[in-house]
Amino acid sequence: MQHFLTTESLTLDQLTAILDTAESFINADGSSVKKVPLLRGKTIVNLFFEASTRTRSTFELAAKRLSADILTMNIAASATVKGESLLDTLRNLEAMHVDMFVVRHQDSGAAEFLSQHISPGISVINAGDGRHAHPTQAMLDMFTIRRHKGAFDQLKVTIVGDLLHSRVARSQIHALRTLGAKEIRVVAPRTLMPTQLEGLGVDVYDSVESALSGTDVIITLRLQKERMQGALLPSEREYFQLFGLTSERVALAAKDAIVMHPGPINRGVEISSSVADGEQSVILQQVSYGIAVRMAVMSILAGQ
Amino acid sequence: MQHFLTTESLTLDQLTAILDTAESFINADGSSVKKVPLLRGKTIVNLFFEASTRTRSTFELAAKRLSADILTMNIAASATVKGESLLDTLRNLEAMHVDMFVVRHQDSGAAEFLSQHISPGISVINAGDGRHAHPTQAMLDMFTIRRHKGAFDQLKVTIVGDLLHSRVARSQIHALRTLGAKEIRVVAPRTLMPTQLEGLGVDVYDSVESALSGTDVIITLRLQKERMQGALLPSEREYFQLFGLTSERVALAAKDAIVMHPGPINRGVEISSSVADGEQSVILQQVSYGIAVRMAVMSILAGQ
Amino acid sequence: MQHFLTTESLTLDQLTAILDTAESFINADGSSVKKVPLLRGKTIVNLFFEASTRTRSTFELAAKRLSADILTMNIAASATVKGESLLDTLRNLEAMHVDMFVVRHQDSGAAEFLSQHISPGISVINAGDGRHAHPTQAMLDMFTIRRHKGAFDQLKVTIVGDLLHSRVARSQIHALRTLGAKEIRVVAPRTLMPTQLEGLGVDVYDSVESALSGTDVIITLRLQKERMQGALLPSEREYFQLFGLTSERVALAAKDAIVMHPGPINRGVEISSSVADGEQSVILQQVSYGIAVRMAVMSILAGQ
Repeated sequence: MQHFLTTESLTLDQLTAILDTAESFINADGSSVKKVPLLRGKTIVNLFFEASTRTRSTFELAAKRLSADILTMNIAASATVKGESLLDTLRNLEAMHVDMFVVRHQDSGAAEFLSQHISPGISVINAGDGRHAHPTQAMLDMFTIRRHKGAFDQLKVTIVGDLLHSRVARSQIHALRTLGAKEIRVVAPRTLMPTQLEGLGVDVYDSVESALSGTDVIITLRLQKERMQGALLPSEREYFQLFGLTSERVALAAKDAIVMHPGPINRGVEISSSVADGEQSVILQQVSYGIAVRMAVMSILAGQ
Repeated sequence: MQHFLTTESLTLDQLTAILDTAESFINADGSSVKKVPLLRGKTIVNLFFEASTRTRSTFELAAKRLSADILTMNIAASATVKGESLLDTLRNLEAMHVDMFVVRHQDSGAAEFLSQHISPGISVINAGDGRHAHPTQAMLDMFTIRRHKGAFDQLKVTIVGDLLHSRVARSQIHALRTLGAKEIRVVAPRTLMPTQLEGLGVDVYDSVESALSGTDVIITLRLQKERMQGALLPSEREYFQLFGLTSERVALAAKDAIVMHPGPINRGVEISSSVADGEQSVILQQVSYGIAVRMAVMSILAGQ
Repeated sequence: MQHFLTTESLTLDQLTAILDTAESFINADGSSVKKVPLLRGKTIVNLFFEASTRTRSTFELAAKRLSADILTMNIAASATVKGESLLDTLRNLEAMHVDMFVVRHQDSGAAEFLSQHISPGISVINAGDGRHAHPTQAMLDMFTIRRHKGAFDQLKVTIVGDLLHSRVARSQIHALRTLGAKEIRVVAPRTLMPTQLEGLGVDVYDSVESALSGTDVIITLRLQKERMQGALLPSEREYFQLFGLTSERVALAAKDAIVMHPGPINRGVEISSSVADGEQSVILQQVSYGIAVRMAVMSILAGQ
């Protein structure tokens, strides 16, 4: 692997290698991550064209745990100010002896575009591009599922929410397919459900109750509040009534089902506080495992 | 000690341990600070909800001198943008395997609130919360006093200025009391003097001249210019005439009195340039000792 | 050398020492820079009063390659907010046990002013001051020239563009003179040509074609778009027609002439894309060598 752009193109072996490598970085109870010298002397640049404190910070922490030097560049605010093209910015940055770029961009395909034009020997990690993909988020979700459920082949996984705009869901579905999940169910308001989803091998449900029935893993997506204004949804309140994850709805799933969310959560919109903070929630573990999974992707790309 | 939130709750032994540890980090003439590997592999997050270049930088430098990894998050500008609550932000950050948080917040009690909800094993340092406390600033002031004056028990200390809004003064008074200062005198314009101060064991003066008479340590507080607009003060000029630290006023103190200020100074408002740059001024030494004192607090909390 | 403020005051030996030291940091093919422990335990502060992603990043990367601790302070946005003077800001920063300041400022002479008032033992590097100087940029240009052309004494160098506002050109001319370049030619629109240039030992040309004829090194300067509004130039299009570096114009130079630009480039304004991306362009190598040259300056100032 030279780049890490989507989960779509990856084989079962590649996905499993990432999960196994991530496993090697955390201690037995999952509570801490070792500092290792694997990327000492390497330079990683966080290239964020779209603001994201959380994702930026986890990549920064992952790089530091690997003993790499990391530099964060908020490009929206700086380099393009002088009217330079994306490609010129990239060329200049790669000339600075950078080994790896972590790219976040509002446009679908931006990370892939950069990877196609970058010099050999430099890696690109997609940290979210438009509505397209967010593969490290998907991989930390897979890691969280595997830690709790072991094998994937008997699992029923339900994804609830704004599938239309979610780069996370797209990346999750590809990874779940390759890892062999038994059933992938999706449910969303009709206005937030993409039309071509069934081709991905998922079962589209109309009712959140049937979608949750007997499921092992519940993934709630974040509702971007800005969608409201686009008239795709009546109101937050109505969304919660129809699709919000409540204790009653979680009770329809398997007894030991886990509840996931990519964060940050909107309490009382896509999830109730009692579920978010409840015993079945693994939302904070997802964040926690994010460091180890990003370390794994970085170290594999660096050939370590 | 798990957290460092105020000087109020600390014992003489605890305060002395901080001062002694800070002493161990600087060389004989106080001009430089050693780089030590005490916190190698630890992750510290600067959580700044209120902008502060100076305090942020000294914590960042202190962490680097201790060989820790440090990440600065300017929260006002980022995480709460998506509407997340303070507690959800904290939960997410602590899930990232952070060992210590340095918190600056505009609301009194914010650091304590966070410390009450944080997981065991993670420390919180208060880097200034509203009008409440700024304990590392107070401790570097104590360190500066001890370096110049030795023992506290014969010392007369005078604090001049906006005591009403000063979290620094509050923290200084508690520390000075516990360290056994002989006299703590305070003087301020009536509109900037809190009503409950005498309960803290200080002597309230009406005249700056009598407050300074024979004192060993003069602490001038910064006058927040925004108070002017609140009509608490007539004008900067008048403030300087009545309370400004001039050479004439400093001459009323003990011959070897030292002059302190938490910075940044307003020349010609709370202090004249001749005093700020004069021989008795130790203002820049305060800044300098700030690194060692913050290193001491961090290393003690980390159990080193 | 305690400070590095301009190329004007430096001797041939000093310039050569910088170039030789930079050479020692890169590998044979110039493609990568070693990480060395030369400045371990030293603290460098990037003091940027004027925004510059590229220059800031190269200094940050150079410092990290030398194993120094580096802190970036964007002063425009922060420290002077509270109304502190430049000198007070400096005094406070130097009290934080900083070993070296890298200063970028919109006013000519700012770095020199700071160097005159700084404590002994602390170094100042000028990273661009107003229209005055940008000496590390000039030195990386000299390094690029030497790598491609070897000795300077037979070289004809042509500088094209906005010489009036260019701190880069000024620093290049001084360095080229001291290094013994045979001819230094300059050409610019009359409104962008300073009057006192001939005293510097350069040949002023009226026509870009004659200035380029038989030259070995072509340096195109960036056209600051904001000059347009000042009515110093008719339009970008007309500028390109009269002074833009096209393949036809480059063909007038020596066959093996190299094309340089301090970046970021304005395609179709001061340079055509075919030249910028062409075989004779060494623009990205300039960026690349910038790390090694800045490492050289830093390590020489630190006495390493």
